[in-house]
Amino acid sequence: MKTKVSLLLTGSELMNGDVVDTNSVLFAEQLNNIGLSIDKKVTIGDEQELLATEILQLSQTSDLLFINGGLGPTTDDLTAEVVATACNSKLELNKDAHQHLKTWAKRRNTTLNQPNLKQAYLPKNSNIIANRTGSAVGFSVELNQCLIICTPGVPSELAHMLREEITIILKTRFVPPQYNTLHRLHLFGIGESSIQALINDHLPAWPNEITIGFRAAMPILELKLAVNCQQGQKLLPEWLTKIKLLLGAHILAEGDNGNSTLADYLVPQLIRAHQKITVAESCTGGLIASQLTSISGASAVFEAGYVTYSNEMKTKMLGVPTSTLINHGAVSKETVIAMATGALANSGADFTIAVSGIAGPNGGTKDKPVGSVWIAWGDKSNIQAKYYCINVARKQFQHIVAARSLDLVRRMLIQSNEMAHYDK
Amino acid sequence: MKTKVSLLLTGSELMNGDVVDTNSVLFAEQLNNIGLSIDKKVTIGDEQELLATEILQLSQTSDLLFINGGLGPTTDDLTAEVVATACNSKLELNKDAHQHLKTWAKRRNTTLNQPNLKQAYLPKNSNIIANRTGSAVGFSVELNQCLIICTPGVPSELAHMLREEITIILKTRFVPPQYNTLHRLHLFGIGESSIQALINDHLPAWPNEITIGFRAAMPILELKLAVNCQQGQKLLPEWLTKIKLLLGAHILAEGDNGNSTLADYLVPQLIRAHQKITVAESCTGGLIASQLTSISGASAVFEAGYVTYSNEMKTKMLGVPTSTLINHGAVSKETVIAMATGALANSGADFTIAVSGIAGPNGGTKDKPVGSVWIAWGDKSNIQAKYYCINVARKQFQHIVAARSLDLVRRMLIQSNEMAHYDK
Repeated sequence: MKTKVSLLLTGSELMNGDVVDTNSVLFAEQLNNIGLSIDKKVTIGDEQELLATEILQLSQTSDLLFINGGLGPTTDDLTAEVVATACNSKLELNKDAHQHLKTWAKRRNTTLNQPNLKQAYLPKNSNIIANRTGSAVGFSVELNQCLIICTPGVPSELAHMLREEITIILKTRFVPPQYNTLHRLHLFGIGESSIQALINDHLPAWPNEITIGFRAAMPILELKLAVNCQQGQKLLPEWLTKIKLLLGAHILAEGDNGNSTLADYLVPQLIRAHQKITVAESCTGGLIASQLTSISGASAVFEAGYVTYSNEMKTKMLGVPTSTLINHGAVSKETVIAMATGALANSGADFTIAVSGIAGPNGGTKDKPVGSVWIAWGDKSNIQAKYYCINVARKQFQHIVAARSLDLVRRMLIQSNEMAHYDK
Repeated sequence: MKTKVSLLLTGSELMNGDVVDTNSVLFAEQLNNIGLSIDKKVTIGDEQELLATEILQLSQTSDLLFINGGLGPTTDDLTAEVVATACNSKLELNKDAHQHLKTWAKRRNTTLNQPNLKQAYLPKNSNIIANRTGSAVGFSVELNQCLIICTPGVPSELAHMLREEITIILKTRFVPPQYNTLHRLHLFGIGESSIQALINDHLPAWPNEITIGFRAAMPILELKLAVNCQQGQKLLPEWLTKIKLLLGAHILAEGDNGNSTLADYLVPQLIRAHQKITVAESCTGGLIASQLTSISGASAVFEAGYVTYSNEMKTKMLGVPTSTLINHGAVSKETVIAMATGALANSGADFTIAVSGIAGPNGGTKDKPVGSVWIAWGDKSNIQAKYYCINVARKQFQHIVAARSLDLVRRMLIQSNEMAHYDK
């Protein structure tokens, strides 16, 4: 029978619109990894009576109840108290929690004050759950045959506690561990429907035991292969190999949740290859350079970027001939190739990217509508250029152009002949 | 008596971690604006029985219940059906909804198919709520003296419906409209506790009728002044003037929700002043340029940006003397002033920014730890530089440096002598 899981999120900041709840995603991901899923989420502000009533009700309908938030030292942190009320018990000094706080204070060369000490008082019969970084320990209690697990609201503390402590507790109680696996492929340059069509055409015998799912982590697409039975577990390696062959150069990486930009994949690849890259940007205005340099270690592969927003600067900084700009316009194959060539020569890098386009909302013409962009990329021996029309809002346009540019270099670097189908 | 408001969010994508719920924020903001607030949120997947039970329960404890999502044409869109079940009634063809769908299809030069037509079937006695863009109309019904309002899950459709339709319905039923106001000031360069201290010291007679609240919309801080009574409404203009005088140059703008970067404020200001800006970036690697150029109309104020990540490129692209780099290092007052001067000369801009720092996690030394940064800014007649140590994660460091750099130019442009207190 399915384990019934509820999640109670607390905190007035979640009610008044000041904070977006991202902790739910952490819960869902970690639970999914061990084959559990959340059936109901409830969010309530810091209201003692409402919280206690809700905990009691949820404990009656769930096998597992997570409470998130309200473990801090201040008076609006109510979780321990309302759990005790729901359990019809009292708060008492928990020795393990007290020890944790003493160690925590010692590491900070400070002493415990009264508000901190409050965090050592937990409902009777609580088991504490370690918190590696923060002062608030987690704790679990049983009520109405439901396991209640109380967790900190700070996302980094929660993420660590879920991964390192809670999933281990849950595995022993709720999950037959060996049969549950979630395997992710991070993809770019191919869409969901194209992947589904490829599988239908080339892997028609795809086994039912391996469920295919997708997660759009813009601009990255994640393909999730989930199994939850012994047979699925047995089949997974073989079918994983097959689908990896099928998807080829569209695969950025495999493993945990994906990254936020293509630079997260390209920079390590350039570091491994001992190759440097430069960028000449018009319509993206520095976004590609900033994505590359947001990655730790970027200085090994990136020395110079040229943001040439005006025609004059394309000529002055990159040597684009005035005649090219006059004859073909700033948004043209000739201009981006001249930009890419100039950046390569000036910087001494191995790879180059140049982009010029119309980000909008103004500046479009009949021939070159808003969304038009030319991307040039290559190395000393081979600079290519491609035209795309990406008619979306300005900032989104800039992000898509950056992603495609970096992906084109990534494909060149792995010497892939496989073309991306960015528009599908 | 306070209007009790509940929000039921539906959709399996909200349960499995694939989607972060941002619609809650839209609800909270629009309700806040008219003096209402949400007491309880419940999130459930596309499960018919669970949804119907929850709607019935929430209707018994709420004056107003919003349901979000599940209005689409597919079989997992269950809202109309489960509301009908909860009301113990049936779905019937709603003439207004049918007319909306016919108009919607006509605008798209298409005809209604069977799945679309499903959207015209609503619970008996529903009143429809217009949806300007999508096929799904909203609708309201009464149950247990609770007004149930069903809304689309697509954020842009929801935002429009809340703003243009629903708040008007609510104002007539729940809110004494003339007494509720929320006024926002967008701030940068001063923290919450400093503002509170300033008010305590300089405006000790601050009236109870005007509630002060904050919203951290990183990197912007919003100060929210809320009134919900006639006396507060009367006092607001006078005290708003006083607090604006007190906060002076820390105020970026006033009005609706804030923007995402300092560039959103600086670019319009530069456009109005007919002034151009250039940037020379080391540790921010193009981020400042990309924030400036993410704003529509940036081409009027921005022509060139120099991403000089290596020492060699600082010399080659900006003319920073090799001796300066050797004697003072890349992260020094002398280097950033030379970078700023070089960028100004090369670009012909009116204002300049240069930054050089150690974004980390590697590269720090005892003298210049990770988080060290020099920012230079100014115009032809006056280039200044300041040192900060901002010891946070790499990407956050880059965003904070970008925000402070743009803010320093903003203050110069309004000729403010008021110094920012970025670290408080």
